[in-house]
Amino acid sequence: MKLYDCAVAPSPRRVRIFLAEKGITVPTVQVDLRNGEQFSESFRKINPECTVPVLELNDGTRIADAIAICVYFEGVKGEPPLIGRDPASRARIVAASRRAERDGFYAMVEAFRNATPGFKGRALPGTADYEQIPALAERGRARVARFFETMEAELAGRAFVCGNDYSLADITVLVTIDFAKWIKLTIPESCVHLRRWYDAVSARASAKA
Amino acid sequence: MKLYDCAVAPSPRRVRIFLAEKGITVPTVQVDLRNGEQFSESFRKINPECTVPVLELNDGTRIADAIAICVYFEGVKGEPPLIGRDPASRARIVAASRRAERDGFYAMVEAFRNATPGFKGRALPGTADYEQIPALAERGRARVARFFETMEAELAGRAFVCGNDYSLADITVLVTIDFAKWIKLTIPESCVHLRRWYDAVSARASAKA
Repeated sequence: MKLYDCAVAPSPRRVRIFLAEKGITVPTVQVDLRNGEQFSESFRKINPECTVPVLELNDGTRIADAIAICVYFEGVKGEPPLIGRDPASRARIVAASRRAERDGFYAMVEAFRNATPGFKGRALPGTADYEQIPALAERGRARVARFFETMEAELAGRAFVCGNDYSLADITVLVTIDFAKWIKLTIPESCVHLRRWYDAVSARASAKA
Repeated sequence: MKLYDCAVAPSPRRVRIFLAEKGITVPTVQVDLRNGEQFSESFRKINPECTVPVLELNDGTRIADAIAICVYFEGVKGEPPLIGRDPASRARIVAASRRAERDGFYAMVEAFRNATPGFKGRALPGTADYEQIPALAERGRARVARFFETMEAELAGRAFVCGNDYSLADITVLVTIDFAKWIKLTIPESCVHLRRWYDAVSARASAKA
């Protein structure tokens, strides 16, 4: 088994944190996204969509999606549960993680890729070439700012995003917040609950993954 | 238990098809999205994000996300499995469904909401008001067309999106294709495998859900 990874990229970091929380070690192969290695002929054979992370199982099966890889490892090693202990908690965590991805992570991707000179002509991940849309970069920034406020309100009464236990939803929010620093969007001073939560999850050993 | 639903909307249809395939019946409450009932004071108390579907469990827990609701019912009633029988197949289905959602369903949402007069000033679902971005509507149409071609290539050698068994990934693709008709995007004649698959899944009783 091996994980195609890129140490500086936000999306595979979700998998690395998940694995660290589970106490699972998987050999990694670094793909140099900054120099376009994902578009090389050899990596296209691994993942024609030219994205990381990709998990390759021993039978050759490849899973080219960060959350799907987490779902795989949750099934292989249930403890500690990071996607719930029963159907209702699983559904709540999936809903919270999806919302954080949609309103936070993807909004950040829009803000970043539509405004960064190096992504001119490839505003979306993958192999299709789409032009940057400046209005989308601006909307992305506004959405990330709004996402901070939403999380602030929710974390007022909770230790973690879905209650008393650390979960996949916390990973999605943490990675989004660290990603947002790339474009100088930081948690407002006024968001005291979100800051308290951020300090706590950042202090976990897994956050270094 | 009850499901807040809207019979004409694509997103809750994913849940209805999923339930039909499982043979599960849940009482529904129709929310009239076309007349803005999701923004009413009473519905805001159900879901402050003003979207459907929302599943309300008997203990009052609410799950306001179509895929998370499917995950709930997969946990409650495993047969027939629609999200895999083991960790590897589960991961493959989650990856395929997420890709179909990102490259197909969300692209369609962008194409539709950014070009439809009725969505002026609310180009994204939810309570935040964002202006339409015409370039995003155009890009969305291009992405949906590309999505058809990707699915055509993959379905050349398979009965269903993830192999021999119908799964959540088929539901996501089916709902996307029917949604695309709203803006007159239809499967090209040349996509013979996709058309064969579409006819097969549309003939299942669940497609009427």
